[in-house]
Amino acid sequence: MALHVLHYLHHGRAQWGVVAEGAITPIPGEYESTAAFIEANPVERLMILSGPSIPESEVQWLSPITANQQFICQGANYRQHMIESGMDPDVKKFNMIFTKAPSCIVAADSAIVKPRAVRFLDYEIELGLVLKRDITSGETVTEANLHEYIAGVVIVNDYSARDIQIPQMQFYKGKSFRTFGPVGPYLCLLEKHDIPKLKELVLTLTVNGTVRQNDTTAGLVYGPAETLTELSRVHDLRTGDLLATGTPSGCALSIPSPEKQRAAAQLSEEDKWRLFLKMQEDRPQYLQVGDVVEAWIVSLDRSINLGVQQNVVVEEAV
Amino acid sequence: MALHVLHYLHHGRAQWGVVAEGAITPIPGEYESTAAFIEANPVERLMILSGPSIPESEVQWLSPITANQQFICQGANYRQHMIESGMDPDVKKFNMIFTKAPSCIVAADSAIVKPRAVRFLDYEIELGLVLKRDITSGETVTEANLHEYIAGVVIVNDYSARDIQIPQMQFYKGKSFRTFGPVGPYLCLLEKHDIPKLKELVLTLTVNGTVRQNDTTAGLVYGPAETLTELSRVHDLRTGDLLATGTPSGCALSIPSPEKQRAAAQLSEEDKWRLFLKMQEDRPQYLQVGDVVEAWIVSLDRSINLGVQQNVVVEEAV
Repeated sequence: MALHVLHYLHHGRAQWGVVAEGAITPIPGEYESTAAFIEANPVERLMILSGPSIPESEVQWLSPITANQQFICQGANYRQHMIESGMDPDVKKFNMIFTKAPSCIVAADSAIVKPRAVRFLDYEIELGLVLKRDITSGETVTEANLHEYIAGVVIVNDYSARDIQIPQMQFYKGKSFRTFGPVGPYLCLLEKHDIPKLKELVLTLTVNGTVRQNDTTAGLVYGPAETLTELSRVHDLRTGDLLATGTPSGCALSIPSPEKQRAAAQLSEEDKWRLFLKMQEDRPQYLQVGDVVEAWIVSLDRSINLGVQQNVVVEEAV
Repeated sequence: MALHVLHYLHHGRAQWGVVAEGAITPIPGEYESTAAFIEANPVERLMILSGPSIPESEVQWLSPITANQQFICQGANYRQHMIESGMDPDVKKFNMIFTKAPSCIVAADSAIVKPRAVRFLDYEIELGLVLKRDITSGETVTEANLHEYIAGVVIVNDYSARDIQIPQMQFYKGKSFRTFGPVGPYLCLLEKHDIPKLKELVLTLTVNGTVRQNDTTAGLVYGPAETLTELSRVHDLRTGDLLATGTPSGCALSIPSPEKQRAAAQLSEEDKWRLFLKMQEDRPQYLQVGDVVEAWIVSLDRSINLGVQQNVVVEEAV
């Protein structure tokens, strides 16, 4: 049975606990990283945890992924999102991988700071996979052994400054601003028999109460097993590292059609990006100071419920 | 005076020492990260280090940057390299930032493993800056206070699988394969009066004894101070983190002219990349198994001498 864990602050102390029906059963011990927490607390042991509980309303959320873990992301990884971007999801060319700076990780109810220089702030709800073990050489990860590699799942919102990310080509900077990576609230730890539910998760994101993104992980193009197999042949991953699996359609970003992109390629770099930014100006979907973004992920059978993120967009302090 | 430090293995134990004229004076203590080493050993204290020394030939090099630090890179950051890529270095549009997975870091004399699936393996000599302190908010870094932010410098070779890096758009994967980031051998710790020499460093890279890259840091487009100022406004940096400042001209990679790029933009994605790969086939400069790459960085006055990297390209084990 999927088990939901919360990382939180209570009476000034960072702790972990098992959450059920609004109550937290604290887990003994202090852990300096998600890796240390996962290694010390196999899900089987947490199942039989007992002790006095505290009301969930009394604690302050922390991110279940600590900032000393890797934050790796997949891009253009949902069928509908690819189709809208002028790509054919049936012609899988490559699994796009990039990173966000781990220092952008914040709690699921954190305010999002819109940098003054950023005009086009966008949201991206994503399912985050949390590693269960170190991977230090090529591995063959399959649906059958995936439970040995994935400890659990979380909600990630991959906030992005489109006016930096897209014209500067490399996504890292525009996606790494402080507060641009809320994670949580719950880390749902999975057992082997929960793994098939990874394909039955419904992602929903609203802005000021209006649904903007709504899709299921059945639409993922590169699944967890093939992605971990490929990544394992490139570089090391550590227990507790976070892999965000890409976002469904419905972002504010307007990607020019392949025809428009071909036409724009004839312009100077300067004119090309001026046109791109002009196009974004027509999108009222971009986030403004005061907007409230909510995001949640639940399995069809509701046994996995990753909680609700709520972020208010605030102005950068002078 | 610039002081040269080596991280090494001696009788099976990882240690740090001050290097001068082929002898190492061991530095007391064990450090689990570059951050811990730098924080515990201010350059002023190492200046007066004494004790018995050991011959440098008796030790095995380790990277002075440990794999638990961030590995951040600048792209297209040398004037001549930009001109050859069809860009105008006088029209500074943006400072291109991306990352390599820290697990690709190896010692300066490590073999470089050419993955079987990679056809176009390239080299990139770079000056690496090593952070002296944590940066957790926007800072104004200038030539005058740069010594407060930079502990020292190292040689970095940013090995790149061009057939993955370029067609997959995001540089991370093609630059993150295990062994693709030799660092060292020496970490040269700097004092305030050494800082101006950062503009007088000569970078040289040879393949099988033939010079391929040779330029000075005077050709850097975005300098250390402005780059750290910008990055500090995006995300956190930690003591010991590595910032590779980009590579001069002379790589194997052949970048199509702006005219050719405009023409290629009219082709299908598939044809465009087929053409790109075809173009690379005509470049005998790409590395083959058995090739020997050497790289060194020395200041004009020779007071900063970062040592010599030597890497043999080897086949990936089955």
